Amino acid sequence: MTRIYDRVALIGLGLIASSMFWAMKRNDVAGHVTGFARSAETRDTARRIGLCDTVCDSLADAVNDADLIVLAVPVGVMGQVAAEIAPHLKPGATVTDVGSVKRQVITDVSPHIPDGVHFVPGHPLAGTEHSGPESGFASLFDNRWCLIVPTEDSTPDAVDRLMRYWQALGSNVDTMEPDHHDLVLSVTSHCPHLIAYTMVGVADDLRRVTDSEVIKYSAAGFRDFTRIAASDPTMWRDVFLTNKDATLEILGRFTEELFALQRAIRQGDGDFLHDYFTRTRAIRRGIIEAGQDTDAPNFGRTR
Amino acid sequence: MTRIYDRVALIGLGLIASSMFWAMKRNDVAGHVTGFARSAETRDTARRIGLCDTVCDSLADAVNDADLIVLAVPVGVMGQVAAEIAPHLKPGATVTDVGSVKRQVITDVSPHIPDGVHFVPGHPLAGTEHSGPESGFASLFDNRWCLIVPTEDSTPDAVDRLMRYWQALGSNVDTMEPDHHDLVLSVTSHCPHLIAYTMVGVADDLRRVTDSEVIKYSAAGFRDFTRIAASDPTMWRDVFLTNKDATLEILGRFTEELFALQRAIRQGDGDFLHDYFTRTRAIRRGIIEAGQDTDAPNFGRTR
Repeated sequence: MTRIYDRVALIGLGLIASSMFWAMKRNDVAGHVTGFARSAETRDTARRIGLCDTVCDSLADAVNDADLIVLAVPVGVMGQVAAEIAPHLKPGATVTDVGSVKRQVITDVSPHIPDGVHFVPGHPLAGTEHSGPESGFASLFDNRWCLIVPTEDSTPDAVDRLMRYWQALGSNVDTMEPDHHDLVLSVTSHCPHLIAYTMVGVADDLRRVTDSEVIKYSAAGFRDFTRIAASDPTMWRDVFLTNKDATLEILGRFTEELFALQRAIRQGDGDFLHDYFTRTRAIRRGIIEAGQDTDAPNFGRTR
Repeated sequence: MTRIYDRVALIGLGLIASSMFWAMKRNDVAGHVTGFARSAETRDTARRIGLCDTVCDSLADAVNDADLIVLAVPVGVMGQVAAEIAPHLKPGATVTDVGSVKRQVITDVSPHIPDGVHFVPGHPLAGTEHSGPESGFASLFDNRWCLIVPTEDSTPDAVDRLMRYWQALGSNVDTMEPDHHDLVLSVTSHCPHLIAYTMVGVADDLRRVTDSEVIKYSAAGFRDFTRIAASDPTMWRDVFLTNKDATLEILGRFTEELFALQRAIRQGDGDFLHDYFTRTRAIRRGIIEAGQDTDAPNFGRTR
C-alpha cells in the first residue's frame, strides 16, 4: 500500500509537477490529482496529454479539499500563490513546494498559511534541461535525493508523511536546515548554472566573429555547458535573485580560485595546474561512489 | 575498400590511440598497426587486451617502415617524441598528431621532420572523461569532427590521404588554420574545462566545512562539472600551458561577463538575468541542430 494522500493538488504544471503526476500514478501514491497552471495553453496541453485527473481553471478549484498542495511555480511567485490559495485550504492539509531556494520561500509563504494547515518545504534534486507540461516522466526522481526543509511550525507527523510521499515517488529523502540548504545548493547547482550561462554567453559573442564554428565544433566541454545553460530562464532568474547572499559568496570564492589558475597559466606553473586537476578527480570518484551519476563514458550517451 | 595506409604506428596508447586502433580494425582502415607507450605497464596492458597488432618496446621499432605515425601523447612532449623518431622515419611517410593545441605542436614538431616525410597535424574533437589504454572504443569518432590543420609544408596528397583516413574512422573532416583552431577550441573546450576544474575546486574547499554533503547532493549542474573535471590532468596541464594566449584572452572575456551577471544579481536586475539566460538557450538549439548532441533529457542518461 503506497497511497499516502487521498487528494493532491499540483500548482504549476512544468517539468517537476508533471513528473510528480506520472510518478504518483506509477505507484498509486495518491487517489485523485488536480492540477492548475496560470496559462490556458498549458492547461489545454495538460488535458490533451492526460496530465492530472482533473485540470482546474482556478486555484480555488484545484486546492479544494486537497490533502497535499504542491507549489511547483518559480520561486519568485511562491508567496503570491500562497496568498491566493490560503482561503481555500482544508484544515489538516499540508502545503509543500519544490523550489530550489528555501529561506526566501519560507519567508514569502509562511505568513499566508492558515492555522491548522501544515507547511513543509521541500526540494527534489532532480531535473533536466527541458521544461513545460510535456517534459515530465515517471522516473525523474528515482534514486535521486529530495531534501525536506521543515520550518519551526512543521509538525513531526506532517514532515514524516511528506517524506514517505517522496519515497513513494522513488526518491531518497533527507532533512536539512534552510540556510544550510541554500549554501549547499549554491555550490552544487546554482553557481555551476550561472557559470555555464556565462561561458555560453562568451561563445555567443565570439560566434559573431567566427560564424557558426563555435557551434559546429562544440567539443565535450562546451556541449555540456550549453545543456546546463538551456534550462528555464524564469526559474533561474528567480533562483539567483532569491539566493543572492550564498550565490555572491560562492562566486567570490570561485573568482579567487579562477584567478589563481589564471596566474599559474600566465606564469607557466605546470605543477600547480597538475596538482589542482588531480585533486578534482577525487571528487568525481566520490560522486560516482555516492551513486549520483553513472561511470559510463560521456554519461552513457549512445554516440 | 577502406584500406588507407598499410602500416600505422600509434605513439602513446591512451583513450584516443586505443579508440583509433579499434576503429581501424572495425573498418579495415590499416594493414598492420604497431603501438608504443613509454610505460611498461601500459605496454603490458595493451598486449593483454590485444590493443595493436604489435606492441613495441622502443619508438624506433614502432615507427619502422610505418606509412602513418600518429603522435598521441600529451602536447608538452610532442617535440621530444618527434626528435626521437626522426632518424627512423621512412621517406614518404606521414606524421600526424591528435593534440588539442596546434600552433605550439607545429612549432615543436616541424623542425624535426626530415625531408621527404610529411607532417600533417590533426585534432579529433572527441573524447570522454576516461583515459588510458583500456578506455578506447571503436565508435568514439563516429559522426564527430576531426580538424586537419596543414602546415605550409603539408602536400595536398598527404592532407587528402589523412582526411580520407579520418573519414574511414567515422569522422567528419574539415581543415582549419592553426591560430584560428586554437582560438575556437579555447572557447569550445579549453576554457570550459578550466572553469569546471575551478568550480569543483571551490566545492572541495567547502566540502571540508559540510562533510560529504556537496558530493551526496550533487545536482545536475555540479555533477556535469565533475565529469569534465575528471579528465586527464597531464593532458590538460599541457593544453593550458601551450595555448596560453587564447586561454587568457577568453578567460578575460569570461570574467567580464561573469562580473556583469554578478552585478545584476547584487542589484536585483531580473530583466538582465532573464534576457541573458534566454539568449543562451538559442545556442543550445544550434548545437542540437548541428547534430553535435542529443536532445534527450540529461544526455539520455538511463536514470
